[in-house]
Amino acid sequence: MKSAIIIAHGDLEVTPEVEALVRRADLIIAADGGAAAALAQGWQPHLLVGDLDSAPPDVRARVEAAGAEVLQYPARKDETDTELALRIALERGAQEVYLLGALGGRLDHTLANLLLLALPELQGVRVTILAGRQRAFAIRHRAEIPGRPGDLVSLLPLGGDATGIWTAGLDYPLRGGTLRFGAARGISNVITQAPAEVRLEKGLLLAIVTQQPG
Amino acid sequence: MKSAIIIAHGDLEVTPEVEALVRRADLIIAADGGAAAALAQGWQPHLLVGDLDSAPPDVRARVEAAGAEVLQYPARKDETDTELALRIALERGAQEVYLLGALGGRLDHTLANLLLLALPELQGVRVTILAGRQRAFAIRHRAEIPGRPGDLVSLLPLGGDATGIWTAGLDYPLRGGTLRFGAARGISNVITQAPAEVRLEKGLLLAIVTQQPG
Repeated sequence: MKSAIIIAHGDLEVTPEVEALVRRADLIIAADGGAAAALAQGWQPHLLVGDLDSAPPDVRARVEAAGAEVLQYPARKDETDTELALRIALERGAQEVYLLGALGGRLDHTLANLLLLALPELQGVRVTILAGRQRAFAIRHRAEIPGRPGDLVSLLPLGGDATGIWTAGLDYPLRGGTLRFGAARGISNVITQAPAEVRLEKGLLLAIVTQQPG
Repeated sequence: MKSAIIIAHGDLEVTPEVEALVRRADLIIAADGGAAAALAQGWQPHLLVGDLDSAPPDVRARVEAAGAEVLQYPARKDETDTELALRIALERGAQEVYLLGALGGRLDHTLANLLLLALPELQGVRVTILAGRQRAFAIRHRAEIPGRPGDLVSLLPLGGDATGIWTAGLDYPLRGGTLRFGAARGISNVITQAPAEVRLEKGLLLAIVTQQPG
């Protein structure tokens, strides 16, 4: 499966999992200021994308010198740099995308990056935001929940109520239940048996898994 | 207008605006662990609400000694402590609610608190999350945007596409336009003339205003 890594301009926490994902990625895209963070990790992006208002000229020069393609967009554009990077990853055939540095910093950027997971265009593509011990991804019809017994799983409906939800391997089971848009009922479920699984008939769930230490 | 303050268990940043709002509030509710933060500021909650898994016994004793009502819920409940606090504020007639300490800490709690703003029950009630230089609130039909020229305004559709959006006093104007669910187009608009205003025909926008220094 063709995989892409996107390095955005938020907080970057490099775990062994992240290192392994970057090492085996087919495509590494730096979204603007994410380029400096990538270079600091010794990662060479294949692509630098954005309006480049937060990638200083020396960073651009360094990634270009190592052969990276640079796609510079005007500042008055409709997409954020991270959304552009995601769209390019899809255009280039990525079926699995990991977004790093997508959270932290300005609240609106953090929320916009989480909402990107709900883009209808992402149907059929596995997109995961990784942030330290937490990972976020959308569940459209069915998903296995990565994690071990004891890990926390929160399921938040986006885009309206989510209905016909069935879970397996979670402490608070749902058997055809509904999670109402806006209500926090799906917060802090717990994996009791791995792999846990969530299915739903209608709607979209944002899943956030918090790995427990140990 | 009857106003309530809810102090949740996330990051609490006390600005002069926050101080003034707490001073004039009709009802101060601490959501579980928020009670300790309230006491540390010298604020006496009227109500302590939650499963009390993060309000130590001495904190409970102190708020009770000062006359606060304590509403303890079982840990296996459908709502988060913050959602309970918000529902109680509504039940007790608050028409204006400020949520403090709603962000920071676990990502799922931060997101769940932001999504609370989309609860259909909040129609007609002004609920604002305050977090340092940032404030978040929902726009259902029309809202004035609090802020000064130069402040950033991000408009993010929740619950599906938002259509028929008209703006006044913003740098990137919308004249009957649509913001698509998941897409980040509404990020980083700028107030050019105060008070700025947003109207929409269908959908719900989450507005996040970032105050610029100066």
